[in-house]
Order: sequence, then structure tokens, then C-alpha cells
Amino acid sequence: MTTNEQIVGPWRSLLRAQKAVLDLLAREMEAATGLPLGWYEVLLHLQESPSGRLRMHELADSLLLSRSAVTRFVDRMETADLVERVQCPSDRRGLELMMTANGRQLFRKAGRVHLCGIHEHFAEHLTSEEAVVLERAMTRVLEAATATSDADRAA
Amino acid sequence: MTTNEQIVGPWRSLLRAQKAVLDLLAREMEAATGLPLGWYEVLLHLQESPSGRLRMHELADSLLLSRSAVTRFVDRMETADLVERVQCPSDRRGLELMMTANGRQLFRKAGRVHLCGIHEHFAEHLTSEEAVVLERAMTRVLEAATATSDADRAA
Repeated sequence: MTTNEQIVGPWRSLLRAQKAVLDLLAREMEAATGLPLGWYEVLLHLQESPSGRLRMHELADSLLLSRSAVTRFVDRMETADLVERVQCPSDRRGLELMMTANGRQLFRKAGRVHLCGIHEHFAEHLTSEEAVVLERAMTRVLEAATATSDADRAA
Repeated sequence: MTTNEQIVGPWRSLLRAQKAVLDLLAREMEAATGLPLGWYEVLLHLQESPSGRLRMHELADSLLLSRSAVTRFVDRMETADLVERVQCPSDRRGLELMMTANGRQLFRKAGRVHLCGIHEHFAEHLTSEEAVVLERAMTRVLEAATATSDADRAA
């Protein structure tokens, strides 16, 4: 028999651990680079885009943060000379976002800080077996959630 | 040797799975009860408080959501007749938050919806061994992060 605690316990432990680690990563990122963690995430998505550019709606879709936060982020990041809005080559009325030279430089530093933080506050506390179990289980959970979400949308 | 992918892979899988599951839980909660998931979380913390009451700063501390969101939540939840601000018995100038009768009734329904959701979208996709490994590892990560955070504050 499965008790409520067996259902909720692992889920809550995951929420709490993730929140605690994200708080540390955010504090360390801000201290080392002045970047809020959410800004780093925007730069990361631009970096990972094959063209180095993203439409605003693509950025919103790929962010793990809330959609409404994206426009506010981008405005402030533009003021801070980290990103710029440029004309989309395939659609003269469309705008794309890309990193400025200053943004690319800060992103390299921020990436090293972030990787160190994930290692120190997360990866180092898992055995290699636990890391494998975790990634496999979370990938399965994500696939199921994505399938459910797609089915809901199609309905 | 540990590669960057071995460090970042499990962490990213966890962020993505948690986000996908939270999105489903939020959508189902809203559809079944009309409550945003963040409101449910506020009710849950009130329910779990021994006195059934919380000071605003206690609520902010215990929430897994951002601190700035709490005051906005509480105002809207008061308008919706889910919570009320009452005078703190030990401090005549202080205010505490507690559920209204309407809030308690909706909370019971919401709790069932949430538990079903966690079961369906998360727990059911883990073997019992994986659930044990996950909870143990996440508890260890949380303890380390809490210790680091406490040490930072003391420094």
C-alpha cells in the first residue's frame, strides 16, 4: 500500500532541495557577476540557439521562468548592454534578441561561476549511482508530463 | 573524470521535470478549484501551522515562492474570502493570517486534487527504489545547502 507520505515525501524533498540550491546559485551569481540568475538564464538560451538569436516568443517558450517575466527582463538587460533587439532577417517586421559583445564577455564569466555552483551545491553531494538514477527518473517524469500536456492541448 | 555534462545533466533534468509537473499541477488545480497553485500553498502552510495562524513574515519564510509575492497573494486571497487577517493574541499591534470557513472548505477539495496530481504526474513514474534514492539524495543536498547558507549568514 502506498501512503500519502510516500507519494508526497520525494516530491517535497525535491522542491525544497531545488529551492535551496537555486537560492545559493542566485546569491553567488549576483555576488560574482552582478547578474540576477534569471538574466544568466536568458543569456544561456541565446548562447544555445544555433543562430545566437531568438524571437521573444521562442525565448519565453524555452525559459524555465514565467512567461510574463521575460519582457521585463529583456528591457532591463537591454539597458544594461547585455542584449540587443535586432531585425529578423526572414521577417522585416519581426525582432530577434541577441547578445552584445559585453553580454558575451559577462556570460563566459557567469558560466564558470554557475558550473562551479552546481558542482559544489548539488553534484558533489550525489554518488555517481544516485546521479544516474536521478537523471533517468526525472527524464521519465518529464516525458510523461510533456505527453500529458500535449494530449491536453490536443483535446 | 567528471565532465561538465555529468555535473549539469542531473541538475537540468530535475529543473525541467519539476517545471513540467508544476505546470500540470497548477493547471489542474485551477480547473478543479479555481485556486492558483500559489494560493493553495499559502492555505497549506496555514493548515500545517500548529495554531492554524501565521504572521506574515512566518508565511513568507515558509513559502517556497518568492517573498515579494506573499503580500500580493494575501490581499487577493482576503478579497476572495479564503483568509482573514486577525489580531495576534500575544502582540496587540501584530496581525496574523488564518483561513476563513470558506477557505477551509476549498482547501480540503484542493488537497485531494493536489495529492492525485502528484501521484499521477510524479510518484507513479518512479519505482519505489528510485523514490527512496531520490528523497535521500535530495535531503542530503538540502542539508548541505542549508548549512552553507547558515554559514554565509554568520560570516
